[in-house]
Amino acid sequence: MSRKITVAAAQVGAIDLTTPKKAVVARLLKLLHEAAGKKVKIVVFPECTLTTFFPRHLIPSQEELDKYFEHGEDITQSPDVKPLFDEAKALGIDIVLGYAERTPDGTGYNTCVYYSASEGKVLSKYRKIHLPGTSEPFEDPKAVNQLEKRYFTPGNLGFEAFRASGMVQDAVKKETVKEGESTIGKGDPIMGMLICNDRRWPEAWRVYSLQGAELIVFGFNTGGNMAHLWGSKPMSPEEAKTEALFHSRLVQQANSYMNACFSISSARCGLDDGKFDLIGGSAIVSPEGHVLAEAKTEDDELVVADIDLAAVRQGKEKTFDYGRHRRIETYGLIDKQTGVVEPDLL
Amino acid sequence: MSRKITVAAAQVGAIDLTTPKKAVVARLLKLLHEAAGKKVKIVVFPECTLTTFFPRHLIPSQEELDKYFEHGEDITQSPDVKPLFDEAKALGIDIVLGYAERTPDGTGYNTCVYYSASEGKVLSKYRKIHLPGTSEPFEDPKAVNQLEKRYFTPGNLGFEAFRASGMVQDAVKKETVKEGESTIGKGDPIMGMLICNDRRWPEAWRVYSLQGAELIVFGFNTGGNMAHLWGSKPMSPEEAKTEALFHSRLVQQANSYMNACFSISSARCGLDDGKFDLIGGSAIVSPEGHVLAEAKTEDDELVVADIDLAAVRQGKEKTFDYGRHRRIETYGLIDKQTGVVEPDLL
Repeated sequence: MSRKITVAAAQVGAIDLTTPKKAVVARLLKLLHEAAGKKVKIVVFPECTLTTFFPRHLIPSQEELDKYFEHGEDITQSPDVKPLFDEAKALGIDIVLGYAERTPDGTGYNTCVYYSASEGKVLSKYRKIHLPGTSEPFEDPKAVNQLEKRYFTPGNLGFEAFRASGMVQDAVKKETVKEGESTIGKGDPIMGMLICNDRRWPEAWRVYSLQGAELIVFGFNTGGNMAHLWGSKPMSPEEAKTEALFHSRLVQQANSYMNACFSISSARCGLDDGKFDLIGGSAIVSPEGHVLAEAKTEDDELVVADIDLAAVRQGKEKTFDYGRHRRIETYGLIDKQTGVVEPDLL
Repeated sequence: MSRKITVAAAQVGAIDLTTPKKAVVARLLKLLHEAAGKKVKIVVFPECTLTTFFPRHLIPSQEELDKYFEHGEDITQSPDVKPLFDEAKALGIDIVLGYAERTPDGTGYNTCVYYSASEGKVLSKYRKIHLPGTSEPFEDPKAVNQLEKRYFTPGNLGFEAFRASGMVQDAVKKETVKEGESTIGKGDPIMGMLICNDRRWPEAWRVYSLQGAELIVFGFNTGGNMAHLWGSKPMSPEEAKTEALFHSRLVQQANSYMNACFSISSARCGLDDGKFDLIGGSAIVSPEGHVLAEAKTEDDELVVADIDLAAVRQGKEKTFDYGRHRRIETYGLIDKQTGVVEPDLL
């Protein structure tokens, strides 16, 4: 049985510290309309889509910092962002949106939600677990900060796979779904969400694929030509950017293959505030690890691919048939030991 | 502190069912001598180096099957193979050798050993944990069998990292090591061994890197242009071979990067028995996931690279500083659930 859907990454270019969220949402709406024209059913927006990547900046004022966050439990009711969800519902397109979340108790998370158009609500929320960077700014004034560990708490929702809605077997469903019932059924994709740095951690992908994930999606903000400033290996800015893109692509391709799933990555990119460079490279990757579509620019761009979810079966039933091949009695260290313990010297 | 050593993969070309082990060992000795001429300190030979890749064949006779195994606890005393270990000791080269092992109680393992020239003994033994294939032959007479699950038992030695010997800081050691003491010291590489299919399982790499592994080595026998016979996706023989090589390279590069270690892979390759094609592609890969050296042939070939183990520190201390970034409270499924459990339908 083929299970074909059209999916997209909506890559978003430069945003400055002073860019109003409404102006960003207007750009997202434009990408959403383009997606509608191409019959896309799921659009993945980047990590922290609504503002510049503010962890670059040390922001001492809580009031100032809070401007970069969305407040409250329900992002779909956030005044600046509500038009995006309303339009997604009207167009029948599911969206994944990343944003900085401030909970009512004041905790900050790097969050994304999966919004279902057919259900008219958020189906799943994910809070970033692998926060990179540091809590304290670097002393070197030339160094570019990455203060995610300062502004965010590690996610407390785990890696919960979920069934998305309404994309597959619409004809079958229309006959069988009664008024008020969920539109989600067998045949709809099993999804997992990651955010940026999570993609470099094979544990995250594996926990999802142990729940049968067929499509894993993530947004990212990844430093481009300034990476040479914090690496210990001497590199030119151009080399650093090429290297960052190589690593981003490498882990998406390999983890899609090793977990026999499709993946969609969506970049915030371009030159924020006229100086902070972020790589592009938004991509849609097959369960065999091949790039099906990728961004050609470092600006707002919709990257589209037709995928058939049935293609995950070969990997899941052969090379990566976990039930037959995994040997969990040998994996104990992975969740019992956080850091490295080297063998004793003889 | 730089910690430079020269390492090699000794790729081994076609071997037939009737090729005597002595003839294979003569070829291994030739590669070992070439390594000595290039001042190589560690040579990695392939998986099941000594014979054709016999899991292709259904061999009903136990006596016939046993000819493809080495018997007893100590491979270094196996008459056909002893000359290789003796010569390695004489030349001062450590070797990794893969072979089919039959233990005194009759169990079969797909095994490799790390032999230390300076210690004159096996430092570590590894038995393959992720056995691919099936226990029973395929009914389709055109299908190419992969009977590892029939001939071997999953390895019972776990993934035990170990310190290799004598390659680094020789000058320092000569002054400080007393007669009869181990030559192994701080500064020598922390190693892990895998075999073939293990390389596709990120759990295996991770258990080693949680022990600080700096250099992970593996041999492999991977089907080339016949892979199209068992895949569900239609492919030409040439496409199937290109795909097999792509996946082999992809997982070595990505897992080296995500575990911040060097890796050496060594292929049995060529056309066994005039018809069973195996890919080459032996490679030495950096902790940044770059290919430093790779095989150019599908025959006996020594692939050499100079590496500096100090280069693993950047990854281990920044992006992949496990102590700061890993969140083991979210990884529980990995060693608690073998197969896939999909989310409930709503």
